[in-house]
Amino acid sequence: MKKSFNFIAVILVLLGFSLPTYSLTNNNCTCNQKNAEAVIKLIDEVWNKGNFQIVDQLIAPKYIIRHDPGDQWENKTIDLATYKNRVKMSRDVLPDQKFHIEDLVCQNDKVAVSWKFTGTQKGDLPGLPATNKTVSISGLTIYYFSEEKIIGHWQVIDKLNLFRQLRGETGKH
Amino acid sequence: MKKSFNFIAVILVLLGFSLPTYSLTNNNCTCNQKNAEAVIKLIDEVWNKGNFQIVDQLIAPKYIIRHDPGDQWENKTIDLATYKNRVKMSRDVLPDQKFHIEDLVCQNDKVAVSWKFTGTQKGDLPGLPATNKTVSISGLTIYYFSEEKIIGHWQVIDKLNLFRQLRGETGKH
Repeated sequence: MKKSFNFIAVILVLLGFSLPTYSLTNNNCTCNQKNAEAVIKLIDEVWNKGNFQIVDQLIAPKYIIRHDPGDQWENKTIDLATYKNRVKMSRDVLPDQKFHIEDLVCQNDKVAVSWKFTGTQKGDLPGLPATNKTVSISGLTIYYFSEEKIIGHWQVIDKLNLFRQLRGETGKH
Repeated sequence: MKKSFNFIAVILVLLGFSLPTYSLTNNNCTCNQKNAEAVIKLIDEVWNKGNFQIVDQLIAPKYIIRHDPGDQWENKTIDLATYKNRVKMSRDVLPDQKFHIEDLVCQNDKVAVSWKFTGTQKGDLPGLPATNKTVSISGLTIYYFSEEKIIGHWQVIDKLNLFRQLRGETGKH
């Protein structure tokens, strides 16, 4: 069935038809409140307060950073120790970091969050020694779940403004 | 009821307790398939093909750009003519632009989409005349609905890589 669908799709494309970029097949509409709560807890407790003790409850032993431009672990599968190290490294550079969730969209095994971030650069970044500057930036993340644990994310952060603010730059782009 | 909750919240904060950054009250779990289809249509037909005739079906007469760092209409309410102009300006600069939806999360009156984008800069940007360079970047958008029309968005685009690729830069940040 899938093979014949693919065949028809190829023919349509060859004939000049274009397919939608996303297919809504199997777009079930359930929302798992527990998943939403887990994401809020991850952000409030782990990223904002450095409570590493609950990481094992929330994060799966194999966590995939599916997309996260500029992140050193992008496209990698990391273990729990590496996840904790990831949080620690961020908190070492910006010890007062605070993510504030702006909105949350929850469906099936996914939770999307829009967020704002503030933090003061007290530690060094590659090529950018501690500036003591406070940055205010934003981002969006989709967290993926399996068996009530978070198994990975797809994320975009406004790093243009991050580095601009750290470098004290202004300007259009 | 809300007033007393706010009062208790203030007392808790004064006592040193911190509240979660996002409250799940009223986190209803319905998903409107029509909203998801409207977002796919907006991206496939309007942004990717320049089909302006269907904008009025999809977009509300008052559309709010809630958050979109660097966008000239950020925090503004725009009308349908301005929305079409927004798409036209983007397509004038990058005539072969293609958004590809990577994933979609739909709940109540919101649809979150993660996407990748490719386009070749044939037109001028402020301070950046046409480079003829092809860029591949990504972003995430939450679209908001009311009465089956899209009333606004909250978006983050990886503009660091956009300008890096247009300028032919490489490097960590």
